Amino acid sequence: MKEKLTIVKVGGAVVEDEAQLKQLLSSFRAIEGAKVLVHGGGRRATKVAAELGIETKMVNGRRITDEAMLEVVTMVYGGLVNKHVVAALQSLGVDAIGLCGADGDIIRSHKRPPVTIEGQSVDFGFVGDVDRADGAKIARFIEAGLVPVVAPLTHDGQGHILNTNADTMASETAKALAEHYDVTLIFSFEKKGVLSNPDDDDSVIPVITRKDFERYKADGTISGGMLPKIENALAAVDAGVRQVIITLATALDGQSGTIIR
Amino acid sequence: MKEKLTIVKVGGAVVEDEAQLKQLLSSFRAIEGAKVLVHGGGRRATKVAAELGIETKMVNGRRITDEAMLEVVTMVYGGLVNKHVVAALQSLGVDAIGLCGADGDIIRSHKRPPVTIEGQSVDFGFVGDVDRADGAKIARFIEAGLVPVVAPLTHDGQGHILNTNADTMASETAKALAEHYDVTLIFSFEKKGVLSNPDDDDSVIPVITRKDFERYKADGTISGGMLPKIENALAAVDAGVRQVIITLATALDGQSGTIIR
Repeated sequence: MKEKLTIVKVGGAVVEDEAQLKQLLSSFRAIEGAKVLVHGGGRRATKVAAELGIETKMVNGRRITDEAMLEVVTMVYGGLVNKHVVAALQSLGVDAIGLCGADGDIIRSHKRPPVTIEGQSVDFGFVGDVDRADGAKIARFIEAGLVPVVAPLTHDGQGHILNTNADTMASETAKALAEHYDVTLIFSFEKKGVLSNPDDDDSVIPVITRKDFERYKADGTISGGMLPKIENALAAVDAGVRQVIITLATALDGQSGTIIR
Repeated sequence: MKEKLTIVKVGGAVVEDEAQLKQLLSSFRAIEGAKVLVHGGGRRATKVAAELGIETKMVNGRRITDEAMLEVVTMVYGGLVNKHVVAALQSLGVDAIGLCGADGDIIRSHKRPPVTIEGQSVDFGFVGDVDRADGAKIARFIEAGLVPVVAPLTHDGQGHILNTNADTMASETAKALAEHYDVTLIFSFEKKGVLSNPDDDDSVIPVITRKDFERYKADGTISGGMLPKIENALAAVDAGVRQVIITLATALDGQSGTIIR
């Protein structure tokens, strides 16, 4: 039987608020067994960019990453946020190690070619679409007793850092580790889970399978931005991840929220 | 007999110039056996700080690190410079991994209390004086085939990142690894080595022992900023480092420059 491993993805809103971060890290610390934290940092990147006079442009919720913005995200994700989280975890007795895709060549990507969105060609710039995550290599850090704290940056093997979506980093890491561990992937979310009624915060759908999803999609219970999130979660499950959980940052117990399996 | 290990410390001027960095990394790649790169990044930090409207204050060549400056150096050293160097080394086939003192708890420090300089109390702010470098832990990365790329940041174990001088990071890493490896520490320098005549770039002193140093100090051959550099090098040798070499970034062959032993 494979050892249990929990991967927690936490977004920018949580990591950038000291009180929320403290609570998140304390919950993360309490998770038993092997674990990995994947963080975002987009809000902070936008703030630092603005302070540097660099305008943030988003298309479909994704950042356009020109050369100046690439420097900002490399600084903010790889330096400011990552080292802050690592030092905070160390103070809690968690032997954290900050990693981006280039470190130990764990996640390699290629620069996304221009894509067509609503009839328009969009060049996302220095954004990396993942080619492979090296599960065996990441597992070696974990076996050495370390807790990887992964920043949403990858590299192309040609010397370039690329900006990669943190949800994607978490899914790819989970899929790559599924061969080595019994993996639960937790997405920390601003709601208690996937809601059947957006106006009722307590209407959490406890479990979603592929079959449930098709039904919810057809009847409109699940729509909008939640659709790709759940598609990605189901793809991770198809790739060997035991379950994907969407829950509050304060409820990382593996029981709360919506379980996708 | 212990395995050979080379630690190269490279300053900001080299890492921040693409052509010089490329040459340095190519020389670094050619070094046989286990190796570690320690980098600075002060010039870039000063530049980013200026772009953010933060003034850089130096006392005796050392940066005053208030809260805003700590964020800048964490971004620049831990993110921008470190990830750039790691990705560049990966493109050369070197399995680099970026580490600061907090990563894997490898280098712990305490915040420097205010010090008296020329009768004035100077508070350097969030600057860390090293308490210990964990040689066994760093050695484990190396034994796993990784090449640590160390950023000049440490942590205090209480959740705070601290700014630590890159020369000190290199010396402390060298001393901590001396128990596990036969260590050569190379400081890349803007001259060919320690010069006996500052007006003659070819007047490199080939070897300096403690005895030589006392003589050169007494007769004024070595003076000014070179004195603490050589004191530190001799202290590393006293702590078990085989030799410290001061040389050009383009001459990392272990033969060129001034050898302190």
